[in-house]
Amino acid sequence: MAYDVAVLIGSLRKESLTRQLVLALQKIAPPGLKLRIVEIGDLPHFNADHEASPPPEVTAFKQSIEKADAVLFATPEYNRSVPGVLKNAIDVGSRPYGKSVWNGKPAAVISISQGVLSGFGANHHLRQSLVFLNMPTLQQPEAYIAQVQTLLDGKGGFVKPETKAFLESILKAFEAWIGKVKG
Amino acid sequence: MAYDVAVLIGSLRKESLTRQLVLALQKIAPPGLKLRIVEIGDLPHFNADHEASPPPEVTAFKQSIEKADAVLFATPEYNRSVPGVLKNAIDVGSRPYGKSVWNGKPAAVISISQGVLSGFGANHHLRQSLVFLNMPTLQQPEAYIAQVQTLLDGKGGFVKPETKAFLESILKAFEAWIGKVKG
Amino acid sequence: MAYDVAVLIGSLRKESLTRQLVLALQKIAPPGLKLRIVEIGDLPHFNADHEASPPPEVTAFKQSIEKADAVLFATPEYNRSVPGVLKNAIDVGSRPYGKSVWNGKPAAVISISQGVLSGFGANHHLRQSLVFLNMPTLQQPEAYIAQVQTLLDGKGGFVKPETKAFLESILKAFEAWIGKVKG
Amino acid sequence: MAYDVAVLIGSLRKESLTRQLVLALQKIAPPGLKLRIVEIGDLPHFNADHEASPPPEVTAFKQSIEKADAVLFATPEYNRSVPGVLKNAIDVGSRPYGKSVWNGKPAAVISISQGVLSGFGANHHLRQSLVFLNMPTLQQPEAYIAQVQTLLDGKGGFVKPETKAFLESILKAFEAWIGKVKG
Repeated sequence: MAYDVAVLIGSLRKESLTRQLVLALQKIAPPGLKLRIVEIGDLPHFNADHEASPPPEVTAFKQSIEKADAVLFATPEYNRSVPGVLKNAIDVGSRPYGKSVWNGKPAAVISISQGVLSGFGANHHLRQSLVFLNMPTLQQPEAYIAQVQTLLDGKGGFVKPETKAFLESILKAFEAWIGKVKG
Repeated sequence: MAYDVAVLIGSLRKESLTRQLVLALQKIAPPGLKLRIVEIGDLPHFNADHEASPPPEVTAFKQSIEKADAVLFATPEYNRSVPGVLKNAIDVGSRPYGKSVWNGKPAAVISISQGVLSGFGANHHLRQSLVFLNMPTLQQPEAYIAQVQTLLDGKGGFVKPETKAFLESILKAFEAWIGKVKG
Repeated sequence: MAYDVAVLIGSLRKESLTRQLVLALQKIAPPGLKLRIVEIGDLPHFNADHEASPPPEVTAFKQSIEKADAVLFATPEYNRSVPGVLKNAIDVGSRPYGKSVWNGKPAAVISISQGVLSGFGANHHLRQSLVFLNMPTLQQPEAYIAQVQTLLDGKGGFVKPETKAFLESILKAFEAWIGKVKG
Repeated sequence: MAYDVAVLIGSLRKESLTRQLVLALQKIAPPGLKLRIVEIGDLPHFNADHEASPPPEVTAFKQSIEKADAVLFATPEYNRSVPGVLKNAIDVGSRPYGKSVWNGKPAAVISISQGVLSGFGANHHLRQSLVFLNMPTLQQPEAYIAQVQTLLDGKGGFVKPETKAFLESILKAFEAWIGKVKG
């Protein structure tokens, strides 16, 4: 039985390089990890006035996270932090108080940039939220992906075997981490 | 002539304590500062595919920021960081690349909580974005508002004169800061 | 057999409230946790030129961490971040590259303030280092201790039973976390 | 008259690449900026018990900052944050309470790495302290220096004219910023 991993993607663009990377990760994931993309673009902005009667997108999103064994966040950096749309999905799933769908789920973070900075700001701002959400998060190897546009081959794979090997090592470490957290 | 300050509120709830605080700030602002709330709840999630043909809400939002002399961010903390909805407004205004509406505008941050932690995490995550956005930000006095529900009198004012005096000092310092940055 | 927990204290002051809190924690720790204070005040500033021939304080410090099962960081906040002396101890222990004494050890963070902000900035800046150092860190319960001077009874105990109960819950959660990480 | 800029270097290593970069900056600084290195390696760890009778190194350090018009922090990243030795210098200068030598001085941050991540974590953790210290900090251009060992020519200059031009633009922007803050 593979672990069911919900994957949230921080960019909504159709040809998003982050999404392309996730699609490539799906192909190289070890047998013990099933990477399942959970879409976040249709979620309304979180508003506490609407918590009591959530629209169907919110309910479906929450169920989709609840059934997962673990969560992988793959994100670009917007303005030195987490994209608003991704943070909103986190906010939506965290409420109402005491009913967070994130609670206890093991997590990993992959940040991505076209430049060299590798989404460091997004990566660590996200990790600060994961403390509150009680998501035990993979520490090493950290996954900072610089110049992602030079790494993808445009056919769903990677230009260089080192990139593939590095990302496989991340996924394997995450699989082991999920096993440890779930006990 | 008063400075025109765009105020963004990080919570959408109708009875939001952050909004109530902003309404109370409007009443005590010095003559040199006009606090004008700019709504963010109707902005779509940022999607680079739609940059070229923005919907009218986005255009109106950007114009509303562009004409401001300065920006005040008043926000609660969600999950130890900036509410997604507020970060999204920042992302929307920052694009397309090179056309950011935030560029060069002096800023101040007020973070708010019902508990004691005072939105520290939201406050400083926001400040990290303001570096990239090139918004010279008021450093002191820092504005961390703890237990906000005990400070507001429910009639648009403050329970204690110290709270009013503290917030007046923030607004005066911001007015002086805007003057300095605008030269 | 109790887990041997190295405790680092971020303040050097003799009557440090952080130290007093740690001494009180030692008395209420569960049988499975032995809290052992490791002093950091005599460590030299990290200097890579001296890595090859470390002074005896550095060698003793590293051995003291290496033999521990886990690490507890108890710290005040200095200037919205980790005290330099504590960060220096972390730097000293992390080198030379590939020989870090922190690697893989489970960790917990308790931040402390005399005001309300509870050392939030120190707490999360420290956590950012723990990612790189590969220290799986307890997420919940978070330990932010506000107004510590009102909590300690001056005789090594706590004024209120709630404080004692809260801190006991932190220590129990840490014990369980150590067990999980060590497998 | 040139502005007197105190420069703090986050690394103590004699052949530190950060120091080499600062020495190269001194040669290309505009006539209006005098970059004066202030050494931090001999400062004792901050200890509040010793505030009342500081050793001569502390007194000399404080005077050296007090007389400066502005402060430039040039630093590598240690363990995803500010080097302990640099944070300690900041802590030493910030005390006793109400007598901080940093108060009101304009600041800039240059972070440096041998890899690609460019000291992002150190850069922004430092900026969080500068808020509390009331140091108006240059926002743009941000100065993240990646792979510094490939940029320096070993003779006190830069391999590529673009690097020199970029760093000149930082220094010019800082000069203008100091002018604005000092009014």
